[in-house]
Amino acid sequence: MKFEPISGREMPRFAGIKTFFRLPHVELNAGYDLALIGVPFDGSLSYRPGARFAPTRVRELSALGRVYHWERKMSFIEHLKIADVGDCPIVPIDVMKTYSAIEKHFSKLINLKKKFISVGGDHSTTLPILRALYKKHKKPLAFIHFDAHLDTYPAAWDCEYHHGSFLRHALEEGLVDGSKVFQFGLRGPLAGKDDLDVITKYKMNTWTVDDLRRSPLDSFTKKVNKAVGKTPVYISYDIDCLDPAYAPGTGTPVVGGLTTYETQQILRGFHLPTLVGADIVEVSPPYDPSDITSLAAVDTMFELINIFAGADK
Amino acid sequence: MKFEPISGREMPRFAGIKTFFRLPHVELNAGYDLALIGVPFDGSLSYRPGARFAPTRVRELSALGRVYHWERKMSFIEHLKIADVGDCPIVPIDVMKTYSAIEKHFSKLINLKKKFISVGGDHSTTLPILRALYKKHKKPLAFIHFDAHLDTYPAAWDCEYHHGSFLRHALEEGLVDGSKVFQFGLRGPLAGKDDLDVITKYKMNTWTVDDLRRSPLDSFTKKVNKAVGKTPVYISYDIDCLDPAYAPGTGTPVVGGLTTYETQQILRGFHLPTLVGADIVEVSPPYDPSDITSLAAVDTMFELINIFAGADK
Amino acid sequence: MKFEPISGREMPRFAGIKTFFRLPHVELNAGYDLALIGVPFDGSLSYRPGARFAPTRVRELSALGRVYHWERKMSFIEHLKIADVGDCPIVPIDVMKTYSAIEKHFSKLINLKKKFISVGGDHSTTLPILRALYKKHKKPLAFIHFDAHLDTYPAAWDCEYHHGSFLRHALEEGLVDGSKVFQFGLRGPLAGKDDLDVITKYKMNTWTVDDLRRSPLDSFTKKVNKAVGKTPVYISYDIDCLDPAYAPGTGTPVVGGLTTYETQQILRGFHLPTLVGADIVEVSPPYDPSDITSLAAVDTMFELINIFAGADK
Amino acid sequence: MKFEPISGREMPRFAGIKTFFRLPHVELNAGYDLALIGVPFDGSLSYRPGARFAPTRVRELSALGRVYHWERKMSFIEHLKIADVGDCPIVPIDVMKTYSAIEKHFSKLINLKKKFISVGGDHSTTLPILRALYKKHKKPLAFIHFDAHLDTYPAAWDCEYHHGSFLRHALEEGLVDGSKVFQFGLRGPLAGKDDLDVITKYKMNTWTVDDLRRSPLDSFTKKVNKAVGKTPVYISYDIDCLDPAYAPGTGTPVVGGLTTYETQQILRGFHLPTLVGADIVEVSPPYDPSDITSLAAVDTMFELINIFAGADK
Amino acid sequence: MKFEPISGREMPRFAGIKTFFRLPHVELNAGYDLALIGVPFDGSLSYRPGARFAPTRVRELSALGRVYHWERKMSFIEHLKIADVGDCPIVPIDVMKTYSAIEKHFSKLINLKKKFISVGGDHSTTLPILRALYKKHKKPLAFIHFDAHLDTYPAAWDCEYHHGSFLRHALEEGLVDGSKVFQFGLRGPLAGKDDLDVITKYKMNTWTVDDLRRSPLDSFTKKVNKAVGKTPVYISYDIDCLDPAYAPGTGTPVVGGLTTYETQQILRGFHLPTLVGADIVEVSPPYDPSDITSLAAVDTMFELINIFAGADK
Amino acid sequence: MKFEPISGREMPRFAGIKTFFRLPHVELNAGYDLALIGVPFDGSLSYRPGARFAPTRVRELSALGRVYHWERKMSFIEHLKIADVGDCPIVPIDVMKTYSAIEKHFSKLINLKKKFISVGGDHSTTLPILRALYKKHKKPLAFIHFDAHLDTYPAAWDCEYHHGSFLRHALEEGLVDGSKVFQFGLRGPLAGKDDLDVITKYKMNTWTVDDLRRSPLDSFTKKVNKAVGKTPVYISYDIDCLDPAYAPGTGTPVVGGLTTYETQQILRGFHLPTLVGADIVEVSPPYDPSDITSLAAVDTMFELINIFAGADK
Repeated sequence: MKFEPISGREMPRFAGIKTFFRLPHVELNAGYDLALIGVPFDGSLSYRPGARFAPTRVRELSALGRVYHWERKMSFIEHLKIADVGDCPIVPIDVMKTYSAIEKHFSKLINLKKKFISVGGDHSTTLPILRALYKKHKKPLAFIHFDAHLDTYPAAWDCEYHHGSFLRHALEEGLVDGSKVFQFGLRGPLAGKDDLDVITKYKMNTWTVDDLRRSPLDSFTKKVNKAVGKTPVYISYDIDCLDPAYAPGTGTPVVGGLTTYETQQILRGFHLPTLVGADIVEVSPPYDPSDITSLAAVDTMFELINIFAGADK
Repeated sequence: MKFEPISGREMPRFAGIKTFFRLPHVELNAGYDLALIGVPFDGSLSYRPGARFAPTRVRELSALGRVYHWERKMSFIEHLKIADVGDCPIVPIDVMKTYSAIEKHFSKLINLKKKFISVGGDHSTTLPILRALYKKHKKPLAFIHFDAHLDTYPAAWDCEYHHGSFLRHALEEGLVDGSKVFQFGLRGPLAGKDDLDVITKYKMNTWTVDDLRRSPLDSFTKKVNKAVGKTPVYISYDIDCLDPAYAPGTGTPVVGGLTTYETQQILRGFHLPTLVGADIVEVSPPYDPSDITSLAAVDTMFELINIFAGADK
Repeated sequence: MKFEPISGREMPRFAGIKTFFRLPHVELNAGYDLALIGVPFDGSLSYRPGARFAPTRVRELSALGRVYHWERKMSFIEHLKIADVGDCPIVPIDVMKTYSAIEKHFSKLINLKKKFISVGGDHSTTLPILRALYKKHKKPLAFIHFDAHLDTYPAAWDCEYHHGSFLRHALEEGLVDGSKVFQFGLRGPLAGKDDLDVITKYKMNTWTVDDLRRSPLDSFTKKVNKAVGKTPVYISYDIDCLDPAYAPGTGTPVVGGLTTYETQQILRGFHLPTLVGADIVEVSPPYDPSDITSLAAVDTMFELINIFAGADK
Repeated sequence: MKFEPISGREMPRFAGIKTFFRLPHVELNAGYDLALIGVPFDGSLSYRPGARFAPTRVRELSALGRVYHWERKMSFIEHLKIADVGDCPIVPIDVMKTYSAIEKHFSKLINLKKKFISVGGDHSTTLPILRALYKKHKKPLAFIHFDAHLDTYPAAWDCEYHHGSFLRHALEEGLVDGSKVFQFGLRGPLAGKDDLDVITKYKMNTWTVDDLRRSPLDSFTKKVNKAVGKTPVYISYDIDCLDPAYAPGTGTPVVGGLTTYETQQILRGFHLPTLVGADIVEVSPPYDPSDITSLAAVDTMFELINIFAGADK
Repeated sequence: MKFEPISGREMPRFAGIKTFFRLPHVELNAGYDLALIGVPFDGSLSYRPGARFAPTRVRELSALGRVYHWERKMSFIEHLKIADVGDCPIVPIDVMKTYSAIEKHFSKLINLKKKFISVGGDHSTTLPILRALYKKHKKPLAFIHFDAHLDTYPAAWDCEYHHGSFLRHALEEGLVDGSKVFQFGLRGPLAGKDDLDVITKYKMNTWTVDDLRRSPLDSFTKKVNKAVGKTPVYISYDIDCLDPAYAPGTGTPVVGGLTTYETQQILRGFHLPTLVGADIVEVSPPYDPSDITSLAAVDTMFELINIFAGADK
Repeated sequence: MKFEPISGREMPRFAGIKTFFRLPHVELNAGYDLALIGVPFDGSLSYRPGARFAPTRVRELSALGRVYHWERKMSFIEHLKIADVGDCPIVPIDVMKTYSAIEKHFSKLINLKKKFISVGGDHSTTLPILRALYKKHKKPLAFIHFDAHLDTYPAAWDCEYHHGSFLRHALEEGLVDGSKVFQFGLRGPLAGKDDLDVITKYKMNTWTVDDLRRSPLDSFTKKVNKAVGKTPVYISYDIDCLDPAYAPGTGTPVVGGLTTYETQQILRGFHLPTLVGADIVEVSPPYDPSDITSLAAVDTMFELINIFAGADK
């Protein structure tokens, strides 16, 4: 089996059953290195739903994907065997059952020694993935976090677990190391000043859009590369880190955000040999009439694949 | 306080804060007869979400509402004091907490001796409303059900309670009297023949679109009027009873459905002095680019109001 | 000059500058018989604006037009010279100046002995056209009116003239003969019972959708054909006579309306040698994401052209 | 391997890689009876393109599919092994190369003794399929044709082969028997009276929407069933047979069309043991903002599957 | 009464009747400091209409609003009592009557010593507001103007008053002081060189996008803050100052515009203790399929609120 | 005849038959200098079709056009006679016939000594235009190319000629001088490293978005102006050079692109007295719900007109 995308010069890009990047659809235990996987759960959202359709639409748009990275000067298929392993089981109307299902499924994947990029789903799906990784690695991860929101918020409607609290839980459960949390793209009004306390408490590195535009972007990525060192690291990319002009199709958009060019620059600045997993979340196709948000997700997936592929350098 | 819509000839219909039918927004215990109320919960859906935005959008479109019914030759405001009581509390990401909140809120309304028309939300929101009514009336209700689906389906993903099982639970809990269940508009493929067993078991009156098009519509409504008699009766109108041409904006559309003209004819055929409540559910604004689904909901609300208003005749 | 559409088998239908039916764009005084003309004014609307873009979008969709009428068994180009005379001057933000401009422009057209089909614009644009016709014919016209609304309503916001009052003014000014007004497709709630008084006062023939569905459609058209006799007659087709499923793109949609098939049947039933003008109004492209409303307008234009073309039989 | 759809009660309908009806994706020579296959070619269209995306979108919407037919009282999976065989190779920008590729691919399928339902693509894709069938059966087929258009038109832009001429070519090449051509849903203006000559020449049975609404629908289907007899028969369903209200997403829409209910009734009236193949064409997702056209295609696919499944009765 | 937004952690943001920022809806003379008010008039537009729906849609999107400003480090509710006072009366089809109604209504508000942020409406609505302010303050205001257009254009279609001439009238009537007019974001082609004469004549400070990108943004805001000094000042924010990528939903979009980040930076640079009123105009929901324009308006409203809230510092 | 746009202050911009910039529609041989012409062919596209509708939609949006250039301080109508010459004949379903038709039509235009700006169409339409120019000028042109893609790719689906190979053919046929090819805006993944070889082979000047953001933009335009010198030069502007946020409506969008402001700056930096023709291609209206892509095309057309108009300086 060739773990490579079907060429658009052979089969037109609009043709064929849609898998991520036109890769083969395989079983979890097949002989690939890096899994692309969907997590179609949007049951923890606070505003506009629809992220459940993200894996389908991102698969469709990923037909536009290609393999050679002009800036990194490499073709990922020469470094990685890569495949689409389908969607993770979830329970669309039950948060807790879903967390269990995700944790279980990703534990399987991790125990098979696979790396992965997950396409959510709402951001709460990251929590059970981190739990699965912690079970394996038995120490807190470094955590690179693209988002408009801190996601360390308190309970809402008396529910501890929702898409705005996943990172607080990950910190409280010791799944991630606060001093190795790096947040890119934060902005927007907060419910109150208290929302900022968690930054201090956990010594997180929180960079707002203003912060990022005051210095060259590689000054941030160099800091991250160095701080991560040999710690296993995870990248979580909430599409709402982007400005609504670039990513209208998301559940809780915030104006004044990053451009895709900026997050490309940041992602290209990473050299992370210890990267163990990544996700792209909060893409909401019903609010994305021209599919540009799904397309941004596809491009981000391409950059993430290249971080994995370049890890052997 | 005047419990009447603001006239469109005084304040343009696109102006003003949007309440149902431009009625006053009041507290639960104000001096009205019939409450219009939103239940913005879509956490039990199996396919396309978005019904959480239905109360907002139906309020917006209801600005087109007027008061005189040409066929019934009556103006509802001469028969009823009517008001918008806002939205019922719900927990967007927890089905069970939401059922409790809805049951509690509607119990308050019922104990205040109010009639109501609720705008969901997904169809599972009908179940706690029926529980609240049962607590009050202490006997099974007659139940008039517009839908493409039976909604008596078994558990899905090991979840007993979802938007396709509410009626089975209502039957099993004795909230409604199977022989006084009247289903209009059913159609479409089923998961299997077993799905039909519940009809026999509970002696339900199930009329498919084919059935309805073989006889005059008033033959059905006369049968219902008679069978209901003095039993308290509830009307639940799932917008997917309509064909997708008339109601594209819904979670699980089924082609081959009713027209709005047909459901108007059916609703106009009802004389139901014992009507205790009604709902309109499964309107999904993100899939309704021209708002015709919300508009159909507004018109259905107008017909329902007139059944309440005509009950004193 | 050939007053014929450009063939789609020569120049593809999506190509070329868009005129109505791909006809030549000519000056008012050119040698044609029937003018197609735009009236892009929507300044008298009470709810959703956008009809100002109708002439442009109807021109675009009319590229799909063809010339042979399968049921009438005739090709209109063998009976009529037909042309696009561009748009009537209007003042987008001033109702009274616009009425003057329309009356003046149509008077020119009428004095040149041209027949015409106008594409509005909102329904108030019909009033100055009727004034121009009355100046010429010096007696009240027969008036065939497709609409969801009576359009005989009182002043709104202290404005006498708006898109819901044009017919009342035409009656009051004696431009049309109430007993020869024929209304097709009325329905929906009214502001009050008083709204109906005008029907009695002017002896209008008002047929609701219910009325039309109780008898064969040709029973109505025969009645109209006979009653019109030698009186000059005008047809005004408000696209909201159609159900929102068929015509979502309109300013004040009303559910429970006619189908395009039904209005085709009615229009095909007319034999009106005295037809002096016609219009299609209230098409609102911003609310018509798939252009089906504009397409319905194009088809109605085709049927109207054929009534003119068949008048010589 | 189970040739059955994945249950929506196990894996939510929005989850998973999208195949037709959630069936297994298999090689051409696998052990199924009936193939579902995409033909994503829209290079022969005369107006709005986009049908190349139909297989993808119809696959996505077919996740709503179920297996039990309420009217036929049967579950197709008890009669047929059914599978998704992916998309047929095509050349997006070359009509002739595409015809060859389609003919070759379908010949393989036919030689493997498979039945099939194809999802186009524009209507010209039917011609090479008919050629492949003719090579096998060596005699003209009976041909059941749902369409707004005759599709027997002459060359356009000096091109003999386009989406409006496929049936003329099929007749001229002797692939179908004119007297056993049955056309449902025709309507709309023609380029000229000559367009009708082919009906007489080939003794075709052409039923306009008017014809179909003058008699009960089963009078037509009985006639077809009888006339087909033992002749191999093909069904070609152009989605534009439907009214634009029901199928806005198509390349050359025509108002005044059929409803999905009507084509369901016709399809349910067929008993065709000699059915050898079928297609659904001209679905254009870019013009289908609520996906109701794709949904109508899915439902039509379900009805077609049931004709195949009921052929053994 | 608490003049504070309802928390999204208590009532979900998609629930409830929609007021600006989920604030209480009160009478004009209630005990608040700062009024949020709608002016749903779009009768003076020259191209795409729809701004009449802006107050409704901005109210809906403002449910995403929060209270703490990360950069200003303050929570506005600690400085201001703030409320939604509903919509200003307007006459949808009469410009002059509307100007009178607006001037009268805002005079009431001003005489009650309220500050306000208005949501238009087209830009002509600013003129009567300035008249009301002038009546109170009896001297020309300083005027901060975000726009793609000068809005000092001559009459159009013989109408003096339209959405592109409001500022010329304000200058001619002496309502604003030309030397204290500061225009941000101008660009795009002009009708002729003469359009620029008014800048010289009134000594206005006009900064094109090019100007703004040649120097740090705070160099402009410092200049404004200083020049305003103790003069009463008004901010008028035409959403078309933003690039169409950031604000597609507007009547006369111009490419090459500002980003939301840039206008945030400008607004955050203001310290204006004499700010007496502000508006946000030209948001056109029918052209805003993903609501990002309304969202930009909400964010701008948040920044404006904070200028009022910070004025006491 | 006045070769000037109709003023929007006389006839509202939404009124009238739509020509480019509201210019007169004339025959090829009329007395103008610069032709605006449509080339509605999208038969060579590899992904999303729809560019066939670009000339129509760009004409519609160009109603917003004006004549005075604020930065260049000139009004183009004082330098050029400019007109809309309609659309070039094409064969929608045949690439080779279309190339012949385009070459022939543009040869006529060129032999009449006209300059032109063409609105495609897909990018393959540039090739026959270059052939027509070469026939006239008899030497390779300088070529300024805005694009996300190199468009020097190899055959696809065994087709040499498609929208991604036009530049390779132009180079191979000697129509353009590789060392005077200047590419702006390239980016995105490639099929392989080999895709870059052509740059070296033909000594092309290829500037990615990264390159352009590392130096002031005028450093690039100065280099181009100088290198072009007296060579006849052509500008081809593929709208996908822009980021999808600025131009969602295109066939093969790539994230991380240019802003309209940036391409304005580049176009304003050109002084090209030898400019012989230009095009704007790959605008796809079906994917452009708010028309911002067509609007970007209109603005680009304005900038291109001004380069022609400024060439006499």
